[in-house]
Amino acid sequence: MSSSQEHKQRYNQLCRDANANLRSLEMTASLVEIVIWGQNFLAACDRVDLISRVPEKSYFMFAATPNGKLKRSRPVNSRLFVSMDDNEVTTLFAGIGTSSSHTVQDRHRKLYSAAMSYFAVADLLNESDQKTPGTFFEIFVGHMIASTLSCTPVKHTTTNTIEGPLTLPTDYIFDLGPNKPRIHLPIKTSTRERAVQVWAHQRILDGMHGGDRFRGILVCFGETNKQDNRSVVEVCVPQQWLAYQRYISKLHRIYYFDPPAKYLALRNYHPPMPVDEFGSFFDEVSQLTSF
Amino acid sequence: MSSSQEHKQRYNQLCRDANANLRSLEMTASLVEIVIWGQNFLAACDRVDLISRVPEKSYFMFAATPNGKLKRSRPVNSRLFVSMDDNEVTTLFAGIGTSSSHTVQDRHRKLYSAAMSYFAVADLLNESDQKTPGTFFEIFVGHMIASTLSCTPVKHTTTNTIEGPLTLPTDYIFDLGPNKPRIHLPIKTSTRERAVQVWAHQRILDGMHGGDRFRGILVCFGETNKQDNRSVVEVCVPQQWLAYQRYISKLHRIYYFDPPAKYLALRNYHPPMPVDEFGSFFDEVSQLTSF
Repeated sequence: MSSSQEHKQRYNQLCRDANANLRSLEMTASLVEIVIWGQNFLAACDRVDLISRVPEKSYFMFAATPNGKLKRSRPVNSRLFVSMDDNEVTTLFAGIGTSSSHTVQDRHRKLYSAAMSYFAVADLLNESDQKTPGTFFEIFVGHMIASTLSCTPVKHTTTNTIEGPLTLPTDYIFDLGPNKPRIHLPIKTSTRERAVQVWAHQRILDGMHGGDRFRGILVCFGETNKQDNRSVVEVCVPQQWLAYQRYISKLHRIYYFDPPAKYLALRNYHPPMPVDEFGSFFDEVSQLTSF
Repeated sequence: MSSSQEHKQRYNQLCRDANANLRSLEMTASLVEIVIWGQNFLAACDRVDLISRVPEKSYFMFAATPNGKLKRSRPVNSRLFVSMDDNEVTTLFAGIGTSSSHTVQDRHRKLYSAAMSYFAVADLLNESDQKTPGTFFEIFVGHMIASTLSCTPVKHTTTNTIEGPLTLPTDYIFDLGPNKPRIHLPIKTSTRERAVQVWAHQRILDGMHGGDRFRGILVCFGETNKQDNRSVVEVCVPQQWLAYQRYISKLHRIYYFDPPAKYLALRNYHPPMPVDEFGSFFDEVSQLTSF
């Protein structure tokens, strides 16, 4: 079996597990396996430095010739990506919300590296694959948050209208019980021109169910873009985000695996935009889940 | 020069003319030429019937081997597509808003055929080209509406906030003068999961400038999708559109070149969704542009 086929099989298993139960032990095992497999695959690949146009960040890409043809990965943040042995990956998934053995920086790097190990392998083995990295990332983040909240999410919402019930497909929604906010969790590898969808969906939930019932938590990987296989930029539209947050709806948190400085700077605006590193979720989970 | 190169040159000229002045005589001439060129190119291509899964509509596709490789176009509505000679194309662009020589059905078919002649040629000559059909369609519709309104649109809006001026990129916006509504004109070949963006941008305009100052007019080509190069479906999400119109903002009109029956049916809802054929714009322009 080729590496490409094996990778595809593991991805398909991951999707089956996620559909069956996003917070089962089988789900954890599939995630651990696909991350370990990716880490091992990448250990044998070349690393090529990229020219970073992003202040204070440096990037490289993985390169390999899996089927005789040179393939290159997306940009990888040099300071954040770390190689992990099998035990480290297992420990990461087992104890992310609780373990005190991780420093904040250590946890942040390992989360980044676990997700990136799937993305980079997909870039090297698949043909212009946009879809499976997005699905992997949604399952990866969804599983961690569902495990932490001890709650299995749904992907729809229903309200009664004058004409009868209206049901809409949504991103993950967590019902934490009475007297608790519900969590609306959109997950995107990058936002680009699609960010406005997240604020629009939050507005629909606010309109259907009243304000302050659903807390919108957006999780993104990063906003890097590779140009000509040589240099890296970050594509950010902070002025547009301010307009979304002011005129469409309010997001409660925006977490990044590789946070762009231009979005982190929005924390200093009034009202502040709650942009942070993804790992912070696990430290503030009790605040997020109570009024 | 190959057909592919000639097509690209004409497209580039079109973009230059649009950037210079969307309602110049040069712009009209470029559009007439690219449509005539497309019509002539398609006259020499094969037509292959498709299996229509859309009630009461039938579709075919164009097929050709421009570089020795078999290429196929998107689905073409058999009842709407007509071949036009050079004079008919010239007359269409010269007199669309005024000429009484077109019956409503005749005008509708010619508008459909003019736009489709670009799309089908791009499908046959370019490699997985999503971008140029979208840009062509925006210029095509933007030019016709700008000419009819005698107004050149901009693509941004500015408001004053507590922190100073905030400028955002937008779709076409027409400022018709004092005591007139402004027109917000998003143009999309198909909406898919991107429709919500249109309602979200309308909401930002309402939030920035107050309600009822900007009228949102969405123009789409169609919602067909080809499966396995054999059959045709229409992808529609009417329940989601109702939620957008209720909870995000109100669009004033939604025009289609090949209107899906499921969206036309929303006209019978309360409040009715204003979905119609694109040609109707020219008949109701005075209503649309006055309070």
